[in-house]
Amino acid sequence: MENGERIWTVYLAGEIHSDWRERIAAGITGAGLPVVLTSPVTDHAASDDCGVTILGLEQDKFWHDHKGAGVNAVRTYTLLREADIVVVRFGEKYRQWNAAFDAGYASALGKPVITQHDTEFDHALKEVDAAARATARTPAQVAAVLRYVITGELPG
Amino acid sequence: MENGERIWTVYLAGEIHSDWRERIAAGITGAGLPVVLTSPVTDHAASDDCGVTILGLEQDKFWHDHKGAGVNAVRTYTLLREADIVVVRFGEKYRQWNAAFDAGYASALGKPVITQHDTEFDHALKEVDAAARATARTPAQVAAVLRYVITGELPG
Amino acid sequence: MENGERIWTVYLAGEIHSDWRERIAAGITGAGLPVVLTSPVTDHAASDDCGVTILGLEQDKFWHDHKGAGVNAVRTYTLLREADIVVVRFGEKYRQWNAAFDAGYASALGKPVITQHDTEFDHALKEVDAAARATARTPAQVAAVLRYVITGELPG
Amino acid sequence: MENGERIWTVYLAGEIHSDWRERIAAGITGAGLPVVLTSPVTDHAASDDCGVTILGLEQDKFWHDHKGAGVNAVRTYTLLREADIVVVRFGEKYRQWNAAFDAGYASALGKPVITQHDTEFDHALKEVDAAARATARTPAQVAAVLRYVITGELPG
Amino acid sequence: MENGERIWTVYLAGEIHSDWRERIAAGITGAGLPVVLTSPVTDHAASDDCGVTILGLEQDKFWHDHKGAGVNAVRTYTLLREADIVVVRFGEKYRQWNAAFDAGYASALGKPVITQHDTEFDHALKEVDAAARATARTPAQVAAVLRYVITGELPG
Amino acid sequence: MENGERIWTVYLAGEIHSDWRERIAAGITGAGLPVVLTSPVTDHAASDDCGVTILGLEQDKFWHDHKGAGVNAVRTYTLLREADIVVVRFGEKYRQWNAAFDAGYASALGKPVITQHDTEFDHALKEVDAAARATARTPAQVAAVLRYVITGELPG
Amino acid sequence: MENGERIWTVYLAGEIHSDWRERIAAGITGAGLPVVLTSPVTDHAASDDCGVTILGLEQDKFWHDHKGAGVNAVRTYTLLREADIVVVRFGEKYRQWNAAFDAGYASALGKPVITQHDTEFDHALKEVDAAARATARTPAQVAAVLRYVITGELPG
Amino acid sequence: MENGERIWTVYLAGEIHSDWRERIAAGITGAGLPVVLTSPVTDHAASDDCGVTILGLEQDKFWHDHKGAGVNAVRTYTLLREADIVVVRFGEKYRQWNAAFDAGYASALGKPVITQHDTEFDHALKEVDAAARATARTPAQVAAVLRYVITGELPG
Repeated sequence: MENGERIWTVYLAGEIHSDWRERIAAGITGAGLPVVLTSPVTDHAASDDCGVTILGLEQDKFWHDHKGAGVNAVRTYTLLREADIVVVRFGEKYRQWNAAFDAGYASALGKPVITQHDTEFDHALKEVDAAARATARTPAQVAAVLRYVITGELPG
Repeated sequence: MENGERIWTVYLAGEIHSDWRERIAAGITGAGLPVVLTSPVTDHAASDDCGVTILGLEQDKFWHDHKGAGVNAVRTYTLLREADIVVVRFGEKYRQWNAAFDAGYASALGKPVITQHDTEFDHALKEVDAAARATARTPAQVAAVLRYVITGELPG
Repeated sequence: MENGERIWTVYLAGEIHSDWRERIAAGITGAGLPVVLTSPVTDHAASDDCGVTILGLEQDKFWHDHKGAGVNAVRTYTLLREADIVVVRFGEKYRQWNAAFDAGYASALGKPVITQHDTEFDHALKEVDAAARATARTPAQVAAVLRYVITGELPG
Repeated sequence: MENGERIWTVYLAGEIHSDWRERIAAGITGAGLPVVLTSPVTDHAASDDCGVTILGLEQDKFWHDHKGAGVNAVRTYTLLREADIVVVRFGEKYRQWNAAFDAGYASALGKPVITQHDTEFDHALKEVDAAARATARTPAQVAAVLRYVITGELPG
Repeated sequence: MENGERIWTVYLAGEIHSDWRERIAAGITGAGLPVVLTSPVTDHAASDDCGVTILGLEQDKFWHDHKGAGVNAVRTYTLLREADIVVVRFGEKYRQWNAAFDAGYASALGKPVITQHDTEFDHALKEVDAAARATARTPAQVAAVLRYVITGELPG
Repeated sequence: MENGERIWTVYLAGEIHSDWRERIAAGITGAGLPVVLTSPVTDHAASDDCGVTILGLEQDKFWHDHKGAGVNAVRTYTLLREADIVVVRFGEKYRQWNAAFDAGYASALGKPVITQHDTEFDHALKEVDAAARATARTPAQVAAVLRYVITGELPG
Repeated sequence: MENGERIWTVYLAGEIHSDWRERIAAGITGAGLPVVLTSPVTDHAASDDCGVTILGLEQDKFWHDHKGAGVNAVRTYTLLREADIVVVRFGEKYRQWNAAFDAGYASALGKPVITQHDTEFDHALKEVDAAARATARTPAQVAAVLRYVITGELPG
Repeated sequence: MENGERIWTVYLAGEIHSDWRERIAAGITGAGLPVVLTSPVTDHAASDDCGVTILGLEQDKFWHDHKGAGVNAVRTYTLLREADIVVVRFGEKYRQWNAAFDAGYASALGKPVITQHDTEFDHALKEVDAAARATARTPAQVAAVLRYVITGELPG
């Protein structure tokens, strides 16, 4: 039997405003890797409003957010806890504290973390990167790391 | 591969005197969700008498109950421990201390807990609800939370 | 060196409306046991209102309770987690779901649990008692169990 | 024996550019609480340069930062792991991803987390706040939560 | 989906000199239960000599036994650790300290333990039985407990 | 500071019918070792009857034993869990399944176990000895192992 | 159902310069065992250069190695953590500290470890062998241990 | 209260043939740091012969070593498990597989590891260094890291 038959589960944490997950997925499909990608709900409006839409409106915005965060957490920590590898991307927009929170959470669980971000954030992310096993600059690099990790093959 | 292929295991703890489990199951079937529902034995008489029926009668009611609780525990904690999500319902009847016990047990294991109960119990259940990720009022809301958690889709 | 020099930490969970903690404390003092007793905040009004008093008022009673439960949890789970032994009492009044929750939480952590309640609750508490190492009927019995556990001495 | 004799260890994570730690310390001293406060090294320059100063210069800024983050991690995760309570403050300046990372790390370890930040960050911090037991707006509120948690006393 | 689809793994620890495992297996087959039974190697001679047969002879009987125990442990603790339920039988012959050892090992892992032995050993096994969820007298009772735990059905 | 200042906690599990604990204690005192010895209650009659004496008589001997085992367990697993080292002695009399149970329990927790027994039991105890770090023949050897482990000094 | 249906996962740690993995694989295939073998990437050049090839060149050899070790760790600790059994071989060449590191890592996780090496290394590997369940001299012996562990059958 | 009052426990693993531990101790004493240093027994002859000297001679060198390794393990893993920080030094002589084993063991427990070795071993130790938080070249650097970690002060 071969290693390749193993299914690897990779949780893609972090920003939900660009197509980085699709780009990693494309790299994985292109390489034919046995990977299941998991993620938070990436529909921004649904993610923000899921709590009050299902469980009832709140007058106070803090509790509106709190309810939504609770419902999303049922998904995110279940998927994060069962992942083999956690990839955390930091993009241009927003403060993305939840991405850093997820990186800390994964790190405390002993999960291998791969970060992906531009060099401009290197200093601000130094503690997060130091807890990661690898720091990539592009989704293509993340896909290449996953390919090597799973198959032992390098690009080119 | 898609998230939807994952099988989610949901343990339904708590009262065994109303049809709330069936109503959640109907919601899950209606939405076509990949969920396995698990639960304690819901036949009240069997649950009460399993210990003495299988392992021999007891004169003392305390040990009658103790034997039954031991046998049921083999099932309940095995299923609770392997669940992704634990739903705990508090209904109208009985004291339901076992439901609260299960919620505490699940919480200590780091399982996401969803409670379901009427508003009249809100104050009495404040510690339990505070340890939960979401508090629903109806089985339909529980099903809707599970649908969103698994598929990202909201009602309506 | 003797066993007696060890300090035992005992968390007294459950109802805050009778003097059962004081009665256990008196038994411990009388026997000269090296025990530190810990407990939730037992001032009922303070326990209910701590969240909003410190962190700001809430219009909605659910969030009023939620805030208070969160603040109390900082204390209770810290003390419960460090306890050697957890005693859980179920009294006459209120639903006491938090007591059962604490018993489940302690049980999942592998803590030895001692329950204390009247026989009228035996059937309703059978799962909780089955997870406990001992069931006492009076605070004096709890104190006697602690005395034996620590010193090996029996009453009388 | 009284609860008050217990020493509580509180880790103060997050920004190192304002006097919030001193303000919490003042509140603790004022109330005479048995608390040991721990924290990362709060000398910004030392924190940035500790790696290369002790272990040798690096040409590449990424590894300069990496070395420093490694050395600081020896301190921070040791102190964070032994803390009873973790307070995480988010201030005005910088991206503070390390604060969010610490909150995630503490949360995965089951530590009670208290966040402290202005309302303007409520939406961005909703996942972090939802994982916390309490969200305070000022250092004085943090000190008041600690006072209540340890002594059961409320302000005023 | 039904609970019945779950495969339950049951480790049968203890004596290897009677047909008790076959009798439990017969009960399981008769009831059509979805159970995988696991066990140590039950060929007594192979179990005693596996170490030296594979890895080389020993002059000293202590190390002969030690080598064999090491090789058997690779199997037994792997299977015991993944079991949902551990059944430990104490029979007539030999001292069976390994059965009691396995019960202690399983208990510390939080596995539900079922003991099976005659009443003559009740006093000697009181600590082991107190750590178990159920004590059966016959293999048929063990099978009946498993049937109830998995299907909720009682005998008769 | 020196290693010698560390207090080592050693749990002495197993038979309560000979003076082996006193002999180890004498060896420790003679060598001036910083050791706290802990043990189950060694008064055989008290150990057997503690449950019913404190918590009420039982008609059925099984539950008489069960109650006592529960009360003793509050002591034994608390002390065993906090021990640095667990010594388990197997003597001439009785079946001593609780000693083997304790060895399995300690082993699953990752505690270093030292066994002490005559060579006649070597074959029957091969699994227990294989899980131990050392097998001694006399209490004096156990004391010598502890002396070396703590001080680095060998006999003679 | 039979034990034989279980798939055993065996991680083969250690040297990547001889054909020992192939020889174990041949033994497994010959015996028809249900085993999945996993391993680090065994292409020495790829293993050394994976970090810089995918994530960018480094001037400093230390960081060149560091990057590669990080990427390889994503694979190795994921596979090692999920293995049932870890085999660690020490060969003739190189210092093989990573093999010993893997053995320590596996040991701390409670994995059964099998070492394989020539007698010339016995003294140097005494701590590693003492933490292992078995020490084999040849890949054929490793395969024989696996065959016995899985099927109960001995050679010859 | 100040951080400085905390006692830090640092385990010094690895070679026992040079004075590196004394040099670190001198640095700690010079800086007045609140550190307890722990270590294996560093008397090489005692460490090799402790098993047979205390527990009886062995004819076979393998078991001579095995007995000694078992006795030493009682000390080393107890001290390593309770350490806040683990320092592992690799020197010139011998193969030092036990040092690498200890590094792997500490790493799996989530302990912060500091390695110390010359640059000539960088490539061979790349996996070990990648699992460490810092790599020092001299005992003085180790002492300087400890000083900064504990006091926040940098050299010079």
